[in-house]
Amino acid sequence: MAVGLDNLPPLPVVPGVRLGVARAGIKQPDRRDLVVMALDEASHVAAVFTRNAFCAAPVTLARTHLAAAAPRYLLINTGNANAGTGDQGLRDARACCEALAGVVGCRIEQVLPFSTGVIGEPLPVERIRAGLPQAVERLSADGWAEAAHGIMTTDTVAKGASRQLTLGDRMVTVTGIAKGAGMIRPDMATMLAFLATDAAVTPELLQRCLSEAVARSFNRITVDGDTSTNDACVLVATGAAGGSSIAQADSPDYRAFRQAVTEVCETLAQAIVRDGEGATKFITIDVGGGASAQECLAVGYTVAQSPLVKTAFFASDPNWGRILAAVGRAGIADLDMTAVTIDLGDVCIVRDGGRAPDYSEKKGQTVMDRDEITVRIDLARGEARERIWTCDFSYDYVRINAEYRT
Amino acid sequence: MAVGLDNLPPLPVVPGVRLGVARAGIKQPDRRDLVVMALDEASHVAAVFTRNAFCAAPVTLARTHLAAAAPRYLLINTGNANAGTGDQGLRDARACCEALAGVVGCRIEQVLPFSTGVIGEPLPVERIRAGLPQAVERLSADGWAEAAHGIMTTDTVAKGASRQLTLGDRMVTVTGIAKGAGMIRPDMATMLAFLATDAAVTPELLQRCLSEAVARSFNRITVDGDTSTNDACVLVATGAAGGSSIAQADSPDYRAFRQAVTEVCETLAQAIVRDGEGATKFITIDVGGGASAQECLAVGYTVAQSPLVKTAFFASDPNWGRILAAVGRAGIADLDMTAVTIDLGDVCIVRDGGRAPDYSEKKGQTVMDRDEITVRIDLARGEARERIWTCDFSYDYVRINAEYRT
Repeated sequence: MAVGLDNLPPLPVVPGVRLGVARAGIKQPDRRDLVVMALDEASHVAAVFTRNAFCAAPVTLARTHLAAAAPRYLLINTGNANAGTGDQGLRDARACCEALAGVVGCRIEQVLPFSTGVIGEPLPVERIRAGLPQAVERLSADGWAEAAHGIMTTDTVAKGASRQLTLGDRMVTVTGIAKGAGMIRPDMATMLAFLATDAAVTPELLQRCLSEAVARSFNRITVDGDTSTNDACVLVATGAAGGSSIAQADSPDYRAFRQAVTEVCETLAQAIVRDGEGATKFITIDVGGGASAQECLAVGYTVAQSPLVKTAFFASDPNWGRILAAVGRAGIADLDMTAVTIDLGDVCIVRDGGRAPDYSEKKGQTVMDRDEITVRIDLARGEARERIWTCDFSYDYVRINAEYRT
Repeated sequence: MAVGLDNLPPLPVVPGVRLGVARAGIKQPDRRDLVVMALDEASHVAAVFTRNAFCAAPVTLARTHLAAAAPRYLLINTGNANAGTGDQGLRDARACCEALAGVVGCRIEQVLPFSTGVIGEPLPVERIRAGLPQAVERLSADGWAEAAHGIMTTDTVAKGASRQLTLGDRMVTVTGIAKGAGMIRPDMATMLAFLATDAAVTPELLQRCLSEAVARSFNRITVDGDTSTNDACVLVATGAAGGSSIAQADSPDYRAFRQAVTEVCETLAQAIVRDGEGATKFITIDVGGGASAQECLAVGYTVAQSPLVKTAFFASDPNWGRILAAVGRAGIADLDMTAVTIDLGDVCIVRDGGRAPDYSEKKGQTVMDRDEITVRIDLARGEARERIWTCDFSYDYVRINAEYRT
């Protein structure tokens, strides 16, 4: 039950990028579970990966390949994370890259591998190898929607977003897809997200743009506080739109481009939360008045990850005491609770550290009954402000994670 | 459904301490919800309180009173936490202390107030005042079991423990009671715990003993990671057993006494986890081989509070990948995951960062089917070791917290 998520929006093609999907039977029969993305030769690729010390074999190999060569192909499988698989996992990831390199005729270092699904099971290399020709045969510039379905695991809806903007006299496109619903507290990027643009951007600025966009989007969401072992976010710039490369960080073109990338990332990140496992509500936590961004984030994540706050949202219970208690335990030194203000939607629930004088249970209930709610917390000790997105905690979260083997 | 908890054990009297309980109708009619503890004049009182910056009015007042006078009475109510109640909350807490002081004939500073229950509602002072004579009338040395029931909120069983030991030629007693089932990640003490001994101990050593015991017990448990606004733990020493006071921290008497206090605290702390909201399993997380106690605790709490790990325990799913992923995201700098070993009960599940060669799903399932499980994690980078206790995450946790207004 995704909160406020429609079907996939139109996903315009990105000249220079083709996508193909196959049903390889990796975990279940007859499910789209293998995606190949082909990039034109002039493409630059930026990427960010999970900060989990226990990162999966494909993450390790993708980092190595990215340092060694300009990528031409991305190879993505669901149904198996190839994580916790030791040296065999690395050999398996390499074997898959080698197989794709053989089919398309490129070097193995030009293939970046990505996996998502169950942890600790050996990767079914043979099934992936067997599915590759089908995926390659289907490579198509308008394969984005199909690929968005091909990377889903516990997602209930496919996730994609796109923006178009004008740089000089050329219209360029930024299109992206993502997957993820649980094990979501990206510390660098979400489970998996792939964006591409036909804009021309230097490799340095492309990486910088991705890092800045991810910081404001995928690194501002949490479903359950668990950081995956396989998180990765990739931004491809094919340069197919022509024109000179964006090369200056202080140029209007860079700012416009970064804005478009950030909006695509934000939409995808919010889609992950809206589709959070068992989610019935989409919650924005907006923490202002902090002495630093860090303490705003500490308060925001403490509230967003409190099981008591999350179950209160599930119950549509305007239980402001739980929110205030979470603020109080966020570990902020010398926090003056008597200066704290909290608004739930357009209703002030806490002023000066206690129930707001004009608050009534009825007013709080009106906001709580909505399925999209903003909690504004003012710490009244500085100018910093941060915003994160999360969802509630329901019976279905427990059911999904008690039944599904991550 | 408390895991492995029997009925209350025998709770020997502590000479110098009497307890009385009343039904004051604070939140619900005809429920034991008001407890008075009377302490003999020679008693010393040590206490630790919540580290939540948003601490409740009774916590603030108890600290003030403790600094001003030697306590003679503890006044405990359930059904209302008197938290988030601002200045009115402080006036209400003071009014209750004043009422008890009037009934028993002591100074108001000699009364320490404690409250637990719903946050943000005004304390029903009149009902408490009306119930006080009944509680005082029933004061009795053997009132411990009755008081253990009188401090319960979402607890499903009353919690008490006792140890007796010989100091010199005298037998002394340490008896304690506690309450708590949710909003449990004490950063100083659990929701509420009251211990007393008839041993003679100097005030300085009594406080030190309590702090040391709490660090190994109430500060090593977590149900949901939420630290309450009202946590408090009190240790009373009446000295009624006679003899000279324990006054040296390096004496055998102090060590024996601290051991007994620690055992009572551990039993009570574990009882809180066993009775954790919705708990079906009692989990011990034992992290060794750490470079510091701090990093052992970081790993232990990250595993213990991972919703994915907790739901896997609920499902009896030997999903070691989730445990390993939680270890990986605990924020330990330069952690070499390829050296990590994890045992589930007597079964090695992870060796060298991957599935142990001789592990089988069947072996893991055998351990997972038990209702008391120890997870041993060896970080292989030092000598530090810490142990914490937690429980699983079930449908009933969501139900209880969606239905109950904390």
